[in-house]
Amino acid sequence: MRATIIHGERDIRVEDVPDPVLSTGRDAIVRVVAACVCGSDLWPYRGITEVAVPKRIGHEFVGVVEEVGDAVEHVRRGDFVIAPFYQCDSTCLNCRNGMTVHCRHGGWWGSATEGLGFADGGQGERVRVPMADGTLAVVPGGLPDDALIPGLLTLSDVMGTGHHAAVSAGVTEGSTVAVVGDGAVGLCAIIAAKRLGASRIVAMSRHEPRQALAREFGATDVVPERGDAGIARLKEMFDGIGPDIVLECVGTKESMDQALRSARPGGQVGFVGVPNGGPELPVRQMFNTNVGVRGGVAPVRGYIDELLPEVLDGRIQPGRVFDLELPLEEAAQAYRAMDERTAIKVMLRP
Amino acid sequence: MRATIIHGERDIRVEDVPDPVLSTGRDAIVRVVAACVCGSDLWPYRGITEVAVPKRIGHEFVGVVEEVGDAVEHVRRGDFVIAPFYQCDSTCLNCRNGMTVHCRHGGWWGSATEGLGFADGGQGERVRVPMADGTLAVVPGGLPDDALIPGLLTLSDVMGTGHHAAVSAGVTEGSTVAVVGDGAVGLCAIIAAKRLGASRIVAMSRHEPRQALAREFGATDVVPERGDAGIARLKEMFDGIGPDIVLECVGTKESMDQALRSARPGGQVGFVGVPNGGPELPVRQMFNTNVGVRGGVAPVRGYIDELLPEVLDGRIQPGRVFDLELPLEEAAQAYRAMDERTAIKVMLRP
Repeated sequence: MRATIIHGERDIRVEDVPDPVLSTGRDAIVRVVAACVCGSDLWPYRGITEVAVPKRIGHEFVGVVEEVGDAVEHVRRGDFVIAPFYQCDSTCLNCRNGMTVHCRHGGWWGSATEGLGFADGGQGERVRVPMADGTLAVVPGGLPDDALIPGLLTLSDVMGTGHHAAVSAGVTEGSTVAVVGDGAVGLCAIIAAKRLGASRIVAMSRHEPRQALAREFGATDVVPERGDAGIARLKEMFDGIGPDIVLECVGTKESMDQALRSARPGGQVGFVGVPNGGPELPVRQMFNTNVGVRGGVAPVRGYIDELLPEVLDGRIQPGRVFDLELPLEEAAQAYRAMDERTAIKVMLRP
Repeated sequence: MRATIIHGERDIRVEDVPDPVLSTGRDAIVRVVAACVCGSDLWPYRGITEVAVPKRIGHEFVGVVEEVGDAVEHVRRGDFVIAPFYQCDSTCLNCRNGMTVHCRHGGWWGSATEGLGFADGGQGERVRVPMADGTLAVVPGGLPDDALIPGLLTLSDVMGTGHHAAVSAGVTEGSTVAVVGDGAVGLCAIIAAKRLGASRIVAMSRHEPRQALAREFGATDVVPERGDAGIARLKEMFDGIGPDIVLECVGTKESMDQALRSARPGGQVGFVGVPNGGPELPVRQMFNTNVGVRGGVAPVRGYIDELLPEVLDGRIQPGRVFDLELPLEEAAQAYRAMDERTAIKVMLRP
């Protein structure tokens, strides 16, 4: 079968690899219907994290179950499934606390975990999924209409991650919200804030197509300014004190600083941008303003139950973040488009 | 009249000062019935913050209203009142958001504020209270029974501050909680966690009298270990993952580190310890564990309505944190006792 292999900095190839086989009894083999490239896949691509040996890559995919191990109870051959960006048993205490991403027996795509074996990356024709019952979310009704595939694929990461920002910050009926970051996660955070009842949502964006999508997703205002100018605009828009909540969906020093300084006294920052080597948070400033910070790596598996029905009936359309679709064979081009920001999010079809 | 003056490092004197006079129209003159020494008063006492000129000190007091300005509408002569550790109008947007400590027209005891004038410290026989209608909380029924004075006095700071830690962290029915810090605020945080419904409350304390008070206030467990050993004990007590919530009531690098590393994945730290020159918070660690941090300088004025009835009817007894009472004239001795930690909290009676 064919799969994407990263060989080193800016060196992505699609090659022949062995077909996956059931190995632990709790596995499923999934034929990938769609996968995608994540912002975090760009870290090794850009050489920020080292690629010691060529390896399969990718951690977001949906597909059809072809085989299941003897100990698999819930997932069945023929099921259409969503794989989150990690593996989890969905039964341990952390999972029951809603923190499936901190599953005490969990693992990561592209890594080896005791008891699970090595879980290959998801940008390929087939993937072995460890702990299939806990990891995979089954979409009712089998293979869905092709138009639904992009939306379902976002539930493996970006839509759940945007939702996590909003949930972590406590967005609720009537909240006023600003979203820092207009990538796929930031755009999904707008969808999340809207469905949770935010009364006003400001998209911080200077890219016209993303501004347009932000508005379609529910942003009531767009602010192109950043830094001090962006903070001043937000303060002014919200009675001189700023919005209740800021969702930080970038992960840089500048974006976190902007988020912290924009929220009103007693406000909350929800953050899902992967902190890029720090910086540390200014605790004294947080103390003096009562602005809280909560978020992190998103427990998306647990959010699928809540979000899936709305994707299926079209109430939310996070799949629209995919503005480029390529065959798996052109994975190198997909990485280039993400790297150069000519695409928001790229879907790969094997 | 007599009042406490700080002259410099470890130099507290009680001296004759002019009687306060109404000056803005919105003031009240309060005859102080009881005041106290705060942990933060020890900063100038210990020379950590500079005392440029001798000045009156103290920001927690209760007393009887003797005079009110022409524009005062709600507070009346003869009212028994609680003064929070700051002044606020209780009407601006921040106040209406529950953030009275961030009142847009607020001020601090011992400081000058435009429109309010210079507000003298509270450890004296009488105090001019600016914005009396917003600042002062009236206790129904006039001068209360003397046994209630200590509890009412805690509503000016420490009880409200402990409550703020618990509220900021979202303590609710069934929460599991650890409290770092066994000072007056930490002990009040135990009361707060209990009344908000925490199912298990661990007091981190190595001082026997404080451990005993912690248990009387509602702690179900006491852990004397600190640092790595304290974290290991907490993890072990809570199924290997740690408590839902940790209340940080100290403000040092060590206490915040302990709090952050003790909470379970997806847990929350509520902090009210004044950050002692940092350190900054480890954002990457927070991201990787989904442990949030929220808190700061406590909006105690707004909490009085909720807590006062329970102090008056004895359901909560935060006044028990006062383990030393001295006449105002012995203020220097009060500071010494706080500084040397021979007392948890000292009450001064003019």
